[in-house]
Amino acid sequence: MPRIKLTIEYEGTAYSGWQIQSNGLAIQEVVEAALQQVVGTAVRLHSASRTDAGVHARGMVAHFDCERLLPLSAYREGVNGFLPQDIAILQAEVAPKDFHSRFSNSGKWYRYTLCLRPVRSPLLGRTSWHFSKPLDIALMREAAHYFVGCHDFSAFRGSGCSARTTRKDITSVELSESGSLLFIDVRGSGFLRNMVRIMVGTLLEVGLHRKSPEYIQGLLASGDRLVAGRTAPAEGLCLMQIDYLEGYSRIGTELHGSAAKKS
Amino acid sequence: MPRIKLTIEYEGTAYSGWQIQSNGLAIQEVVEAALQQVVGTAVRLHSASRTDAGVHARGMVAHFDCERLLPLSAYREGVNGFLPQDIAILQAEVAPKDFHSRFSNSGKWYRYTLCLRPVRSPLLGRTSWHFSKPLDIALMREAAHYFVGCHDFSAFRGSGCSARTTRKDITSVELSESGSLLFIDVRGSGFLRNMVRIMVGTLLEVGLHRKSPEYIQGLLASGDRLVAGRTAPAEGLCLMQIDYLEGYSRIGTELHGSAAKKS
Repeated sequence: MPRIKLTIEYEGTAYSGWQIQSNGLAIQEVVEAALQQVVGTAVRLHSASRTDAGVHARGMVAHFDCERLLPLSAYREGVNGFLPQDIAILQAEVAPKDFHSRFSNSGKWYRYTLCLRPVRSPLLGRTSWHFSKPLDIALMREAAHYFVGCHDFSAFRGSGCSARTTRKDITSVELSESGSLLFIDVRGSGFLRNMVRIMVGTLLEVGLHRKSPEYIQGLLASGDRLVAGRTAPAEGLCLMQIDYLEGYSRIGTELHGSAAKKS
Repeated sequence: MPRIKLTIEYEGTAYSGWQIQSNGLAIQEVVEAALQQVVGTAVRLHSASRTDAGVHARGMVAHFDCERLLPLSAYREGVNGFLPQDIAILQAEVAPKDFHSRFSNSGKWYRYTLCLRPVRSPLLGRTSWHFSKPLDIALMREAAHYFVGCHDFSAFRGSGCSARTTRKDITSVELSESGSLLFIDVRGSGFLRNMVRIMVGTLLEVGLHRKSPEYIQGLLASGDRLVAGRTAPAEGLCLMQIDYLEGYSRIGTELHGSAAKKS
C-alpha cells in the first residue's frame, strides 16, 4: 500500500480545528471527503499536528495509505478541485513505508502575527490579532530568550492537553516587524496544547511593562498556568512548517516570501 | 457645517463595489448606515474613487458634511463599532470647507497583487490573483516603462467608463516581488474604469512571451481596447492611497509595512 504525504495550507477561520470533532466542521473531514472523491474509497488522514479552532496552516503535513498509486497530480490538482477556497493541497509525495507525519517529524515552526495599530485591519484581520496598546518589543525580545532550551512547559499548557510529557525543547523564539505587523516565530521539537498562544500572551505582559523579562524564567520554574499570561486568540496563529529528518523534503516554506529566508 | 474626511480600509470580497447600486450591497451604503448610527441623521458620502465589485482598499478617502462636530473618535472608533469586520475607518479628520475627496486629490496609488505558484493560496487568495504559469518579470518591467507619462489610455478603458477624457498621466509602474507574490504598483493622477486591471492583463501578455514590450507602445497609439490584454480579476486590486495637495495629510500608508517606504 503506497503511503502518500500531503502538505496542506488552510485558513482556519471557518473551521472547528484540524481534528474531527462533534461540535463543528473540521478541516480533516473536509480533506478526507475530497480525497475520497479522487481515490474512490474512504481515506483516514494521520496528521503531524492538531491545530485548534480558527488556527491557520501554511504547511500542515498529513499522510494516508492508498490501495493503488495514482499520478501525484491526482492527489494535488485533483483533490484541490474538490476543496473549498480556504483549503488546498500544496504538495503530494510518495513517502517511505515507515514515514509517519507525527512520529517522524523532527520539529515544528509556528508563527504568531499581531497587527499593532490603533484600528483593526479589514485586510489583515483574518490572519492576525489586532492589538492597539503600545508594546516594548525590545523587552519582549529579551524575555523570549528565556523560552529557548529544554524546559518544563507546564505553565504554558492549555486545559485538555493530553501530552505525556511537559518537557519540550524550544529551538528559537524570534520577533520581527514588518510595518504594523509583529511576527513571533517559535521553533521547537514539540508543543503542548495552546503553548504558543500562552507564550505570546505571556510575552505581551512583558511588552506592556506589567512584568519583567525574568518573569518568564520564574514561570517555567513554577509550572503554574495561573501565573502565565492569557491565551492569545486563535486567528493570529499559523503552523508554518513541519520538519522531517534527512530524506524527507521540507515544504510549505518556499512558497511564501518572508518564510523563505527562515528555512 | 463641518466637513469630515475619512480614510477607509476594506476587503471588497463580499461587496458589489464602493458605489451604491441596485444589484448588491455596496461599501458606501454600509459606511453611510454606520455613520448615521453615530451622527443621528442621514449621511451622504463623497468618495475619491469608485472601486469595482471585489476590489479592496487600504486607503479609500471619502468626505461628508455634518451639522455639528462630534469628537473625532466618534467618527472612527464610534463608527467602527457599527461596521462589519471587512470595513474600518482608519482616520477621521476635520477638512477645510473647500476640500473635496474627488476633486482635491492630486494622485492615486493602486497595487495589483499576483500569487505566482503552482497551487492557489487559501491564506492569500482573497487579496491576490493566483497565476500558475511562469512569467518573465524582467520583460514585464521593461514593458511597464511604456505606460509612464501622459498618454491616451483608450485601449485600457473598461466598458461603462464615463470619464470625460481618456488622457491620463501615469507617474510610475513598479514591479516588486516578495516570495511568491508579485506586486504591480501603479501611480498616476487619474484612472479610467478597469484601467489598472487591463494594464495588468496586458503586462501578462508580455510576461508570457506572447507579446513584446513594445506592444504596449503600439496599444497606446492605437487606442484599441480589443487588442489589449484581458481584464485581470478584481481580487488582486487594491486602492492603496489617495494623495492630496499640501496641507492635507497623506494617510493609509504608514499603517502598512511595505507601503511605508513608498510614501
